[in-house]
Amino acid sequence: MKEFIYGKNVVKEAINANKNIFQLLLSANNKELIDLAKAKHFNYKILDNKELNKLVDGLHQGAIAEVESYQYYSLQNIIDGARKNNPLVIILDGLEDPHNLGAIIRTSEAAGVDGIIIPKRRSVGVNNTVAKVSTGALEYVKVSEVTNLNNAIAELKKNGYWIVGAEIGDKSQDFREVKYDMPVALVVGSEGKGISRLVLENCDYIVRIPMFGHVNSLNASVSCAILIYEIIKYRKD
Amino acid sequence: MKEFIYGKNVVKEAINANKNIFQLLLSANNKELIDLAKAKHFNYKILDNKELNKLVDGLHQGAIAEVESYQYYSLQNIIDGARKNNPLVIILDGLEDPHNLGAIIRTSEAAGVDGIIIPKRRSVGVNNTVAKVSTGALEYVKVSEVTNLNNAIAELKKNGYWIVGAEIGDKSQDFREVKYDMPVALVVGSEGKGISRLVLENCDYIVRIPMFGHVNSLNASVSCAILIYEIIKYRKD
Repeated sequence: MKEFIYGKNVVKEAINANKNIFQLLLSANNKELIDLAKAKHFNYKILDNKELNKLVDGLHQGAIAEVESYQYYSLQNIIDGARKNNPLVIILDGLEDPHNLGAIIRTSEAAGVDGIIIPKRRSVGVNNTVAKVSTGALEYVKVSEVTNLNNAIAELKKNGYWIVGAEIGDKSQDFREVKYDMPVALVVGSEGKGISRLVLENCDYIVRIPMFGHVNSLNASVSCAILIYEIIKYRKD
Repeated sequence: MKEFIYGKNVVKEAINANKNIFQLLLSANNKELIDLAKAKHFNYKILDNKELNKLVDGLHQGAIAEVESYQYYSLQNIIDGARKNNPLVIILDGLEDPHNLGAIIRTSEAAGVDGIIIPKRRSVGVNNTVAKVSTGALEYVKVSEVTNLNNAIAELKKNGYWIVGAEIGDKSQDFREVKYDMPVALVVGSEGKGISRLVLENCDYIVRIPMFGHVNSLNASVSCAILIYEIIKYRKD
């Protein structure tokens, strides 16, 4: 399946990653991308904004590329490709907002996370918005879509991973109390409902970020970022 | 000046904070807010979605309130009201995206930050989008708008604050190397250009979050959250 991706950074990363681009459509004033396309020997077509507007819904910034739809990785591929010392994968249990998924992919890429696992059902998948919000990071982070999160968790445990769930509640401990000197699969729940019951039961640790205010909730991508950066503190490269 | 705020959480927090609400407009199926309005003796009017749609641009979720426009706090008020032990204020040097400002306000509220300082010019101000993204946290975090950030920094220094700038560059150190056992003003720059030169020169520390990927950039609100949670680790209450 083909789809349009768009936005300067997204298209730039697609070119830099030598992605298979079926059509590269740029506005005439997009000098940086035109130069890049030339340098990397990509064919491109100049269109005016009116024509570009017809192709995609969002803010394309004068850059649209038609590419193969996102090809998910297998869980096995993520496990096999992960770093040997203290790998970190992220499990997103029913995330709904594409902005959150894109933001988590962006942070994961910067932090060198080994892969992200999402469920096929009741979860946002990798789409254009996700790609755009990730500002190109999607090209470098493996995302796997699995039928059953608990099976994936069992597989990760078999491979030596410890499952760390992020959830506020009686059973949770401060996220800094755990020494993440081990392979970690960090589970972050959905924006509204948190982690589902069965997944939570499969967690080896349940951690919470302390909060001191009235509203007392952090955005899912913000929580995820704080936890990722705490966990990789223990990473040895 | 009056303005409309909207969204379930935003309106709920306005009621809970006993804000001066000139008009409270709810859809008939908004049982939780109707009950809350009754309990707190707020007058409300039931409107259908078509009527509500006419009033605001965004997703109102059947809840709109007309309130006084945001009243900024003075810098002095933030300094006077800050906790005595290791207070933390955030300085945003030219943030442009209201989603980032709203997200930073939300994280700041959860983390018990003492106040946020933004410049009057070349910066997003507190508007409806900011209020909505903050999911009600705006009610509890003081935001000050100052004419000159460097004057504000001088004033903070006079009051014992250390200025910590977040900036990637030669002069920066890993954010975990600093022991934040002191009053801190954390400076986060704009999404595109970072911290302006003069402000950077006024920083006592310049710190960076290590990155290990290809794209190598974190969202401003994500960086801010990671730094805030590192800094408050040293807080004594």
